[in-house]
Amino acid sequence: MANMLITGGAGCIGSELASKLLDIGNFVIVYDNMSSGKAEHIEGLLDNKNFEFIEGDILNFDMLKNVMKGSDIVFHMAANPDIKYKEGDTTDKDLKQNVMGTYNVLEAMRINNIKKIVFSSTSAVYGNAEIIPTPERYGPLKPTSLYGASKLACEALISSYCYMFGFQAWIYRFANTIGSKNRKRGTMVITDFIKKLRENKNELEILGNGLQEKSYMLIDDCIDGMLFGINNAKEKVNILNLSPGDSISVNEIAKIIIEEIGLFNVKIKYTGGEQGWLGDVPKSALSSKKMEKLGWKARYNSEQSVRAAAKSMLGGDNQ
Amino acid sequence: MANMLITGGAGCIGSELASKLLDIGNFVIVYDNMSSGKAEHIEGLLDNKNFEFIEGDILNFDMLKNVMKGSDIVFHMAANPDIKYKEGDTTDKDLKQNVMGTYNVLEAMRINNIKKIVFSSTSAVYGNAEIIPTPERYGPLKPTSLYGASKLACEALISSYCYMFGFQAWIYRFANTIGSKNRKRGTMVITDFIKKLRENKNELEILGNGLQEKSYMLIDDCIDGMLFGINNAKEKVNILNLSPGDSISVNEIAKIIIEEIGLFNVKIKYTGGEQGWLGDVPKSALSSKKMEKLGWKARYNSEQSVRAAAKSMLGGDNQ
Repeated sequence: MANMLITGGAGCIGSELASKLLDIGNFVIVYDNMSSGKAEHIEGLLDNKNFEFIEGDILNFDMLKNVMKGSDIVFHMAANPDIKYKEGDTTDKDLKQNVMGTYNVLEAMRINNIKKIVFSSTSAVYGNAEIIPTPERYGPLKPTSLYGASKLACEALISSYCYMFGFQAWIYRFANTIGSKNRKRGTMVITDFIKKLRENKNELEILGNGLQEKSYMLIDDCIDGMLFGINNAKEKVNILNLSPGDSISVNEIAKIIIEEIGLFNVKIKYTGGEQGWLGDVPKSALSSKKMEKLGWKARYNSEQSVRAAAKSMLGGDNQ
Repeated sequence: MANMLITGGAGCIGSELASKLLDIGNFVIVYDNMSSGKAEHIEGLLDNKNFEFIEGDILNFDMLKNVMKGSDIVFHMAANPDIKYKEGDTTDKDLKQNVMGTYNVLEAMRINNIKKIVFSSTSAVYGNAEIIPTPERYGPLKPTSLYGASKLACEALISSYCYMFGFQAWIYRFANTIGSKNRKRGTMVITDFIKKLRENKNELEILGNGLQEKSYMLIDDCIDGMLFGINNAKEKVNILNLSPGDSISVNEIAKIIIEEIGLFNVKIKYTGGEQGWLGDVPKSALSSKKMEKLGWKARYNSEQSVRAAAKSMLGGDNQ
């Protein structure tokens, strides 16, 4: 039994992680500012005597520092989760929430003498990689989005704290991670398609040309991989892709959603262009070889993951 | 003739760069907060009608934005230059001066519609690389110092601005860069040894075990390489090592300095340990193959560079 702190623990991944860590017999504190986290994600945990929820921001350093006292390991999942930049958005959102936020987490850990950090990084650090599926050793890294850049900056900061202050880190570069928890903010393609098809059963608008391709992984697999890595990857700084290794295109995702809803003859409209949004990477897939060498493999490939998530989201709505 | 802005242009490298850019026939503005820059570095340029010096901080965004107006290209050399972290130092110096500073430079460029940036990065982004000499494609990058981490964060930010806002960048990962300009702050091994040997001709204290090895390059070569790269590297984000490709140990540097001063039988004392300071990389060398493929090679290897810099520093003192 250990004391776990999860920043951003009311998010889609963080809340499932909290649930899993409680199941294994840990004490878990979730620290979340509820900007994208949701109360319903953690309401099932509130009665657990080993669980505590504290509403707070990682940018509130003093509070973070106090909440962290006595933790054995910090899962730092809090971040601005929205990779999409729209004309007119401020350009420092990722810098503040992700980079400065991560610095605060590291400093609070250092002051509290906590030495183990697990961090949610992203496939977006690779940018338009020339090797696909992309292994962890790929370089030089040229992120194409402010979000991807901020996550790479966080990786760098975490690495320096490991060497300077004796930390150990597990940095997971996540594939697109999907699950049954509906994301109302609509930043994710499956949710987006379901919403659009509910509004209009005859037509579906796809951002870009539909050929964008990415790795998709179920949240269950993601959490399973994270916990496996912590026990089996023993470097000072462990940088690991979490991915099924393959990828799926937006067109294929659209086809799956349409099938799962049970629609026919849906007309597909494309906004056009190779990118779904400014900074989007047209084709990416994360190599899963390094995790496989450690002995772990995702149970579901990208297509199976998308179908399972779609089924679960649609099923959840009918309950 | 183009308009060049050099942030940190009163530093050792920035001021030599300014001089060279003026020689080629450009208009040059140096913007420097004089925290580590020095008036004597640029006093020879002040009479040049194509030169302007403006004292200001890159953290002063409004001033930076105004100064930048009309520039064609920004050489962003301003940074906290001191890689050494001492117990009790604040941990956010690099984050503020390097990462936030670079963000300000990028934002000021975006607002002023300036699209070309040249950036001084560092060998420290590689950390304790397993491949030496280390090529640009090496990964995953695990910087061991707050300084190295901040520079990698800057690289990531710059890359995202290239893809998001149509910038083009030349990111140079510098070897240890040395020249005739004495650095009073004493952050550099040659200056440090000369100073120590002046105080005591019979004994020299070396930080670490003397076996630390790094690539050293003359500032002349560095600037030559930077300008060559701008004209010959045509990617959107060009990440290039600037290095002679080989390396030299601290013991060998001590030997050269002792020879050049003309001393004999100097007793060497070691503080011990593999690292010269917390976050130091015991052995690093930057591959120069990528620049060589483009057609450029440093004129001096590491040993020749150290000897030339030592001669020049010692000579300069006798004038």
